[in-house]
Amino acid sequence: MNTQEFRIEHDFLGERTIESNVYYGIQTLRAIENFNITGTPVSSEMMLIRALGYVKKAAALANRDLGVLPAHIADAIIYASNKLINGGFKDQFPTDMIQGGAGTSVNMNVNEVIANLGLEYLGHQKGQYEYLHPNNHVNCSQSTNDAYPTALRIALYFKLNEFIESVNILQRSFVFKGSEFAHVLKMGRTQLQDAVPMSLGAEFNAFGTMLREDMQRLREVQALLTEVNMGGTAIGTTINAPSGYPQLVTQYLGELTGLPIVLAEDLVEATSDTGTFTLVSSILKRTAIKISKICNDLRLLSSGPRVGLNEINLPQMQPGSSIMPGKVNPVIPEVVNQTAYYVIGADLTVTMAAEAGQLQLNVMEPVIAFSLFNMLNYLTNACNTLREKCVDGITANEEACREMVMNSVGIVTALNPLLGYETCAAIAKEALKTGKSIHKIVVEEKSYITQQQWDEIYSVENMINPQFLN
Amino acid sequence: MNTQEFRIEHDFLGERTIESNVYYGIQTLRAIENFNITGTPVSSEMMLIRALGYVKKAAALANRDLGVLPAHIADAIIYASNKLINGGFKDQFPTDMIQGGAGTSVNMNVNEVIANLGLEYLGHQKGQYEYLHPNNHVNCSQSTNDAYPTALRIALYFKLNEFIESVNILQRSFVFKGSEFAHVLKMGRTQLQDAVPMSLGAEFNAFGTMLREDMQRLREVQALLTEVNMGGTAIGTTINAPSGYPQLVTQYLGELTGLPIVLAEDLVEATSDTGTFTLVSSILKRTAIKISKICNDLRLLSSGPRVGLNEINLPQMQPGSSIMPGKVNPVIPEVVNQTAYYVIGADLTVTMAAEAGQLQLNVMEPVIAFSLFNMLNYLTNACNTLREKCVDGITANEEACREMVMNSVGIVTALNPLLGYETCAAIAKEALKTGKSIHKIVVEEKSYITQQQWDEIYSVENMINPQFLN
Amino acid sequence: MNTQEFRIEHDFLGERTIESNVYYGIQTLRAIENFNITGTPVSSEMMLIRALGYVKKAAALANRDLGVLPAHIADAIIYASNKLINGGFKDQFPTDMIQGGAGTSVNMNVNEVIANLGLEYLGHQKGQYEYLHPNNHVNCSQSTNDAYPTALRIALYFKLNEFIESVNILQRSFVFKGSEFAHVLKMGRTQLQDAVPMSLGAEFNAFGTMLREDMQRLREVQALLTEVNMGGTAIGTTINAPSGYPQLVTQYLGELTGLPIVLAEDLVEATSDTGTFTLVSSILKRTAIKISKICNDLRLLSSGPRVGLNEINLPQMQPGSSIMPGKVNPVIPEVVNQTAYYVIGADLTVTMAAEAGQLQLNVMEPVIAFSLFNMLNYLTNACNTLREKCVDGITANEEACREMVMNSVGIVTALNPLLGYETCAAIAKEALKTGKSIHKIVVEEKSYITQQQWDEIYSVENMINPQFLN
Amino acid sequence: MNTQEFRIEHDFLGERTIESNVYYGIQTLRAIENFNITGTPVSSEMMLIRALGYVKKAAALANRDLGVLPAHIADAIIYASNKLINGGFKDQFPTDMIQGGAGTSVNMNVNEVIANLGLEYLGHQKGQYEYLHPNNHVNCSQSTNDAYPTALRIALYFKLNEFIESVNILQRSFVFKGSEFAHVLKMGRTQLQDAVPMSLGAEFNAFGTMLREDMQRLREVQALLTEVNMGGTAIGTTINAPSGYPQLVTQYLGELTGLPIVLAEDLVEATSDTGTFTLVSSILKRTAIKISKICNDLRLLSSGPRVGLNEINLPQMQPGSSIMPGKVNPVIPEVVNQTAYYVIGADLTVTMAAEAGQLQLNVMEPVIAFSLFNMLNYLTNACNTLREKCVDGITANEEACREMVMNSVGIVTALNPLLGYETCAAIAKEALKTGKSIHKIVVEEKSYITQQQWDEIYSVENMINPQFLN
Repeated sequence: MNTQEFRIEHDFLGERTIESNVYYGIQTLRAIENFNITGTPVSSEMMLIRALGYVKKAAALANRDLGVLPAHIADAIIYASNKLINGGFKDQFPTDMIQGGAGTSVNMNVNEVIANLGLEYLGHQKGQYEYLHPNNHVNCSQSTNDAYPTALRIALYFKLNEFIESVNILQRSFVFKGSEFAHVLKMGRTQLQDAVPMSLGAEFNAFGTMLREDMQRLREVQALLTEVNMGGTAIGTTINAPSGYPQLVTQYLGELTGLPIVLAEDLVEATSDTGTFTLVSSILKRTAIKISKICNDLRLLSSGPRVGLNEINLPQMQPGSSIMPGKVNPVIPEVVNQTAYYVIGADLTVTMAAEAGQLQLNVMEPVIAFSLFNMLNYLTNACNTLREKCVDGITANEEACREMVMNSVGIVTALNPLLGYETCAAIAKEALKTGKSIHKIVVEEKSYITQQQWDEIYSVENMINPQFLN
Repeated sequence: MNTQEFRIEHDFLGERTIESNVYYGIQTLRAIENFNITGTPVSSEMMLIRALGYVKKAAALANRDLGVLPAHIADAIIYASNKLINGGFKDQFPTDMIQGGAGTSVNMNVNEVIANLGLEYLGHQKGQYEYLHPNNHVNCSQSTNDAYPTALRIALYFKLNEFIESVNILQRSFVFKGSEFAHVLKMGRTQLQDAVPMSLGAEFNAFGTMLREDMQRLREVQALLTEVNMGGTAIGTTINAPSGYPQLVTQYLGELTGLPIVLAEDLVEATSDTGTFTLVSSILKRTAIKISKICNDLRLLSSGPRVGLNEINLPQMQPGSSIMPGKVNPVIPEVVNQTAYYVIGADLTVTMAAEAGQLQLNVMEPVIAFSLFNMLNYLTNACNTLREKCVDGITANEEACREMVMNSVGIVTALNPLLGYETCAAIAKEALKTGKSIHKIVVEEKSYITQQQWDEIYSVENMINPQFLN
Repeated sequence: MNTQEFRIEHDFLGERTIESNVYYGIQTLRAIENFNITGTPVSSEMMLIRALGYVKKAAALANRDLGVLPAHIADAIIYASNKLINGGFKDQFPTDMIQGGAGTSVNMNVNEVIANLGLEYLGHQKGQYEYLHPNNHVNCSQSTNDAYPTALRIALYFKLNEFIESVNILQRSFVFKGSEFAHVLKMGRTQLQDAVPMSLGAEFNAFGTMLREDMQRLREVQALLTEVNMGGTAIGTTINAPSGYPQLVTQYLGELTGLPIVLAEDLVEATSDTGTFTLVSSILKRTAIKISKICNDLRLLSSGPRVGLNEINLPQMQPGSSIMPGKVNPVIPEVVNQTAYYVIGADLTVTMAAEAGQLQLNVMEPVIAFSLFNMLNYLTNACNTLREKCVDGITANEEACREMVMNSVGIVTALNPLLGYETCAAIAKEALKTGKSIHKIVVEEKSYITQQQWDEIYSVENMINPQFLN
Repeated sequence: MNTQEFRIEHDFLGERTIESNVYYGIQTLRAIENFNITGTPVSSEMMLIRALGYVKKAAALANRDLGVLPAHIADAIIYASNKLINGGFKDQFPTDMIQGGAGTSVNMNVNEVIANLGLEYLGHQKGQYEYLHPNNHVNCSQSTNDAYPTALRIALYFKLNEFIESVNILQRSFVFKGSEFAHVLKMGRTQLQDAVPMSLGAEFNAFGTMLREDMQRLREVQALLTEVNMGGTAIGTTINAPSGYPQLVTQYLGELTGLPIVLAEDLVEATSDTGTFTLVSSILKRTAIKISKICNDLRLLSSGPRVGLNEINLPQMQPGSSIMPGKVNPVIPEVVNQTAYYVIGADLTVTMAAEAGQLQLNVMEPVIAFSLFNMLNYLTNACNTLREKCVDGITANEEACREMVMNSVGIVTALNPLLGYETCAAIAKEALKTGKSIHKIVVEEKSYITQQQWDEIYSVENMINPQFLN
C-alpha cells in the first residue's frame, strides 16, 4: 500500500486507512461499511447536505463571535461550508439514507468533509486534525442531537417550497380548465348514480379549490419547521455550548438561509419530539389522498371510449396494450395514483418511526428523513407530470355530456319545489320502468308543467346555475 | 353498609368491598375502575370467556390427575368452568376490552368467577377463598402468560369457523350468479377502458374463485392457531407446573374442544411471539381487500341508471336521497367497502401492537384480541349482508350489455391473428375518429373479412369462448 | 295486527308497518334492516344527533324567513329540533354507525323523528306526513349532501373541545411534575445508552410541552371545521334552495351553535372534499403518537423494581400477575399505548375512506364519522385515565437517580471543552474497560482537573443547568 | 440529424426518432418521457427482466410448436431471450419502476429489446419490424395481462429464495447464541417488570424459533407464486392464443425456470386478482415485525453501559456521538428497526394498490412490484447486516445477569407451590418495602424454608429448568 495514496485515521475504536483523495474520514468509512440497506446514498438528497452546510457555517460564526473558535479556524469552516451550501462535493456523502445512530453518521460525514476541505484551505494535509478537528472544531458547540434535526427542518422547508409551487401550478391548470368547461352541462353523480346536472367546469374548478386549500395547510406546516433546537447540544441541555450561543447561532442561521428561524423554548422537548415531521407527513398524505381522488375521477370520466362514461378525453400518451390494437389508457392518472399509494405507505413509516422514539432522542429520524424526502420528490414529480401530460390537454365531449343529462332521470329533482318529493319520485319510477324521458312524462303525458316552463327550467343556463322555482 | 349485601376482599394492595351478588372479586373490581376506554366489556365477546372456560377445565383435570389439586376442588372448578363454556354469567365479565396487564384482568376475572361459583357448589360463601382460591386453585399450574393466549387462540379458531362459512356461502352465491350469467356477453375492461368481450358469468365466477382461495388461506392460518403454550406458565419456563403437566393439559384441551391442539415446542418463544395473530389479521385484511374490490366493481357495473355502465341491477334496498326523487344507491356494497376499510385499519392496530411486544411477553395482546374480534364480527356480518341483500338479487341487463359489445372498438382484437396488430390498430383508430363500427370498416368498406367470417368470429359463443383463428 | 299498535308508511319502494310508538319511519326501518355490521347505533354518538338538530332548526328558520315554509310548519320543526338538541329521544336513532348511503339514513332518521314529533306538536298523528313531511318540510332546502357533513363538522367541533380540555389538564399534570422533579438529577439517555445528566423535571416538563403544541394544532384544525356547505343541497348546486338561503341558514347555524360558522366559497368542492376530516384524523394520530411515546418512556423509567431503570414509581393500580406474587405492572400506560394503536389504525380507515370518494360526494363518510368519534372518545378517556390513575401519582427515586449519574461514564462529556473530545474518549474507554469511575481517573489518577474543579463541574446544580467551561 | 445515428419508429400515435444504438423502441421511448416519478429504472431489478426473458422464451417455444410462429422467428426470440435471462443489456430497460399502464411499458420494453436483438441475429437492422415484430411475434399469444404478472411471480419466487436463505442463516446465528448462552442465568421480564429467572440462551433461542416459523410461512407463500395465468392473454379470455397453448407455455416455463409452475384454473380471476401479492407482502411484514421486536429487545438488553440493563454487549461498530466521548450506540439494530418500518409502510402501499384494482385487471401492479422488490431487497440486506455486524458478535455479562437475579424479588414465584400465592405476595411486598433480599426473609428471618431447600430451589440449574416442588 502506497502511503501517498492513503492516510491513516483513528477514532476510539481503532485505526483505518482512507484513500488520500477522499474528504470524508474514518467515521464515514465505518458508516459505509455498517449501513447497506437501500443503496441510496445521502447525497441523493443534496438539500440535506446543503442545510448541514448552513448549520456548520452558522455555528462557526457564533463560535467565533463568542471566542470559542479562533478566527482562522472559523474562516476555514466557513470556506468549506460554503462549498457544501453550493452543492459541491456530492460524491463525498456516500452514507446510506437509512442508517443507525440518529443521524450521527451524516453529521460526522459533513464534519469530516468540512474539516478536510478546511485543512486544505489552511495549507494542511487532509487528516491533520490537530489543526482543524471534525469534532472539536467543526462540531464545536453542537451535537448531532441539534445539528441534524435542524438541518432536516431547513431542508424540508426549502423542498416544500418546490412542492407547493408544483401544487400551485397544478391547481391553476384545474381552474383554467374549470373556466374552459364552464358552459359544458353534464350529469353530476353521487355514489356513482345519476344525481343532478352541473357544469363540467364546476367539477374541474373544485379540483383546483381542493388543492388550493392544501397549499394553505402546507404553508402552515412549513412555518412550524422554522423552530429549531440549535444550541441544545446533547439532549437539549446546552452542555458544552457557551452562554448566549443558542440565540446567536439561531440568528445567524436565519440570516444565512433567509428563513424566519426561531429558537425552541423547550430545548429538551424540541430535541426528542418529532411532531412537526409527523405533521409534514400527514399533510403530504392529505395532498396525496386528494390527488389520488382527482385521478380516480379523471379515469372514471374518461372511461370508454365506447363502453364508459366518456365525458372527457385525456391526452393520448402511449399505446395502451401489447395485444389490443388502438387501446389507449389513462397512464398518467394511473402513475399518479400509484405515487399516492407510495406516499400513504411512507406516512405509515414516519408514524411508526415517530412512535418508536425513546427518551431523550428519536433515533429513527433517518428513516423519517428518507421517507419525507421521497414523499416530496415523488409527489412533486407526480404533480408536474399530471399537469403537463394530462390536465393541460384534457378536452370535453360536450355534446355527449349534454345528451346524457337530457336522457337522465335525475333532472326530475328540479321539479321538487313545484311537485313535491313524492310526485317526483313517482315520475322517476315510471321513467325508469318504461324507459320514457322525464320530458315525455311531465309535459306530454301528465301535463304537470308546460313546455314553456320546461324550457325555462331545463335550459343549460338554469341547469348549470339553478334558480329557485316558486 | 349492610354486611350481608357486601363482602370484603383483599389483595396485596389492600381491601375492597364487593357486592354480595357478584361473582367476580377484587381484582376484577380494580380492572373496572382502571380501564375505561372503549365502554365495550369483554363479555361482548363471549367466545373468549367460553375458551377460558375450556382452559380452566382442562387445567383442573390435569392438576387433579397429577395430584396437585384435590378431587373436590377440581370438581368445583370443572362445574364452574362448564357454566362459562355454556355461555352463562355474561354479566360477570365487565372488564373493558382494551386493558393493560396483558390479559391478567380477564384471566383473573374468570378465575374469580369460577372460584365463587365453585365455592357455592362446595357449599361455601362467595369470597371464602381459603376453600377455593382464584390464584392457588383455579389458576393452578397456570399463568396469564399461557392461559390467556391459549384461550384467545381457541376463541379465534371457533370464530374463524363462522367466518369461513360466511365466505363459503357468499362465494357460492357468486358462482351461482356466474352460472346464471354465463350466456350474457359483455365488454371486459382494463384500466376502465374497453378491452375485449367476455361473459358476465365469467366475471361473477371469478369473484367466487377469489373468495374460495381465501377460504384455503383462512383454513391454513386456523390450523396454526392450534399450537398453544399451556404449561409454559410464567414466560414459558413451566415454573410451578408439575412434571408432565404441559402435555396432559394440552391433551385435555384437545379433547374438550374437539380441536387438534398441540403443545408448542419452544414455550419461551410461544409465550412472547404474536406471529400467528398478525397472520390471522393479514389474511382477514386480504379478504377485506378482495371483498372491497368486488364491491367497487359491483358499484361500477351498476352505475347509472342512465348515465353509467348499467350492466347489472342491484336489489333496491332503500330510497337513496333525501332530495333526489327516485334515486336508489348501492348501499349494500357501500357499507361493505366501509367495513373493509375498518378491517384494514384494524390490521394496522394489530401490526403496531405486535411490533411493540417487549422481551418475554407481548403486553399489547388485549388490543390485538379486540381488533381481531371486531374484524371477524364485522367481516362476517358484511359477507352475510352482501350475499343476502345484494348478490343473490342481482340481475343483468343482457341486451344493453350485448349492444355495448357490438358498438365497441375493442372487438377488433379478435382480428389480430388474421390482420396483424398494426392493421388492427389502424382500424381501431379510424373507428374512434369517425364513429364507425368495426363491422362497417372491416366488412363493408375494406372487405378485410367476409360477412360469413364476421358472423363466425363475432357470434356470442365465440366471443365468450374465443377459438383461435388461423 | 292491531292498527292502533301499528301505522303504515310508504316510500317509492313500497309499504311497511311501523310500531305506533316509534318516531322514526319507513326509511329508518329499512336502514335498520340493511345495516348490521357493528351493532353500534348512531345514538351512541348523540353529539351527531344534536348537531343535526341544530342543522334542521337553522334550516327551518331560514326557510320560514324566505317564505318557503309556513310559520306553523317551521315552528313544529323548531320544537322538535330542540328536543334533539337537548339530547332527547336517544332510542329513536338505531341506525348502525357504519352504513351505506353517505349518511342519508341518519339524515332521514332525523327527518322522520322530527316530522313525527312535529306532527304531534301540531295535533296530528305520527305518519300523517301530508301535514309535515320528512322530505318536503324537514329536509326543505337541504340534501344529505350538505346537512350530514355540516352536522358532522359541528359535532366534531364540540367533541374536540372536550378532547382539548383533557389534553390540557394532562399537560398541566406533566408540567406540575416537571416542577416537582426539577431538582432530581438523573442520567439522560439517547438510543437507550447513557448520554449526559439532566433533571427529571426537564423530562416531565417536555412531555407537557409536547402536548401543549398539540393543543395548538387541535385548535387550528377545529377552526377549519367551521366552514360548511349548507345550502349547497345536491352536490353543491344549490338546486331547490331559495335565493339567499345558503347565507341565511349559515348565519342561523352560527347563532344557534355559538360557533363562527362560515359558508364555503366553492360549494361543489366543499360537498365532495373530506380534507378537513383527514386532517382532524391526522392531528389525533399525532397526539396518539406523542402519548404513546410518553407511555413508552414512563414504562421504561419505571422498569424494575430491581432489574430495571427504576427511576420513577407509578401508582400501583392492581396486582400484576396471576402467578407472580407481588408483581405490579404499569397497566395504565399499557392501556394508553393500546389506545394509541387503535387510533393509528383508525386514521388509516379514514385515509382509505377519504381516498375512495368518487366524483361529487364521498359516500364513505359514515365510516369516517365512526372512526373519528371513536378516536376522540377513546383518546379523551385515555388522557383522563393517564392523568388520574398514573401521572398525578408518580414519585421519583431521587437517590437512585443521582447515584446512577455519578456512577456513569457519560458525565465525561462535561470535560470536552477543557480536555478535548479525543482525551475524553480515552477516559471513557478506560472507565468502561476497568470499571473505574470518571472521578477516579480524572482527579485521582491523571490529575486532569482538581477536586475543586470537579466539585464545581459535577455539582447537581451545574449538571442540571450546565455552565460553559472556559 | 444523421440517419445512420437514428432510426424512425412509429406506433398508432405517430412517429419518433430513436438512437440507432439502442435496442428499445418507440413505446419504451414514450414510457421514458411519460414516467418520471422515482428515478429508479426497472433495470434496478434485473430479476424482473430475467423473468420476462423466461416468459418470452417459453412463449416462443410454445408458439413454434403450435405452428403460429415460424421456426426462424422463434429461434431469434429464443436467442434474444437468453441474453436477458443471463442478465445482459441492463442499460436497455430505463422505464421508471412506478409507471402507468399495468406493466405494458415494461412488457413492451422487453418486446422491443428482444425484437431488435433478434433482428440483428437474423441479419436485419434494428427497427425492421416487418421481419420480427415486438407485438406480432415477440408478444405472440400473449398480453401484458398475462406476461407481466407471470414474470413478476417468477421474479418474486427467485428473490424469496435469497431472502429465505438470509433468514435461515440469521436464525442459525440466534440458535448458536442460544446454545452459547444456555448456562447464563438472567431475570426474565414481562411488561418491563421483573418476572422469573430464565436462561439468556432460551431468550436467544426463541429469536431463532420465531424466524424459523417465518421461513415456513415464506415457503408456503412462495409455493402460491407458482400458479400463473399464461395463455389467458387479454383479461383471461385466451383470445388470440392457439388451442393448447396455455398448457404448453406453462409446461415450457416450468422446464426453463426449474420451478413447479402450474396453470391457474380460473384465468379470468387469475388475471385480476392480486391476492398472492398481498400475501407475500403480509408475510414480509410479519417477518419485519418480528425482526423489529428482536432488535427492540437487543437494544433494551444492551442498554447502559452503566445506567441500563447491560445484560449483553453488542459489537461496537462506530463512535456513537459527535459530542459525547466514548459513547457507542446500537446502530445495527437501529438500522434494522428502521428497515422494518419501511417494510410495514410498503405493505400499506401494496394494500391500497390491491384494493384499487378495478374490473378485469389491477392497473396498480407496478407499484406493487416496486414495493415488493424494495421490501425484499431491504429486508435481505437488513437480515444479513444484523447477523454479520451484530448477532454473531454478541457477548453476555454473565455475572451481572446472575447478580440481578439473586437480587430480585421475582424469584419468590418459585415458592408458590410451597407457601401459596398470598404468603409469597406478602414476602414480595416486604422485600420491596425494606430492600431486603428474598433469601433474608424466607430463610434467615421467617424460616419458611431451610438453607438446604433454598440451595436446591435457587441453584442456577433449577432456576433455568425449574422442577416442580411438592
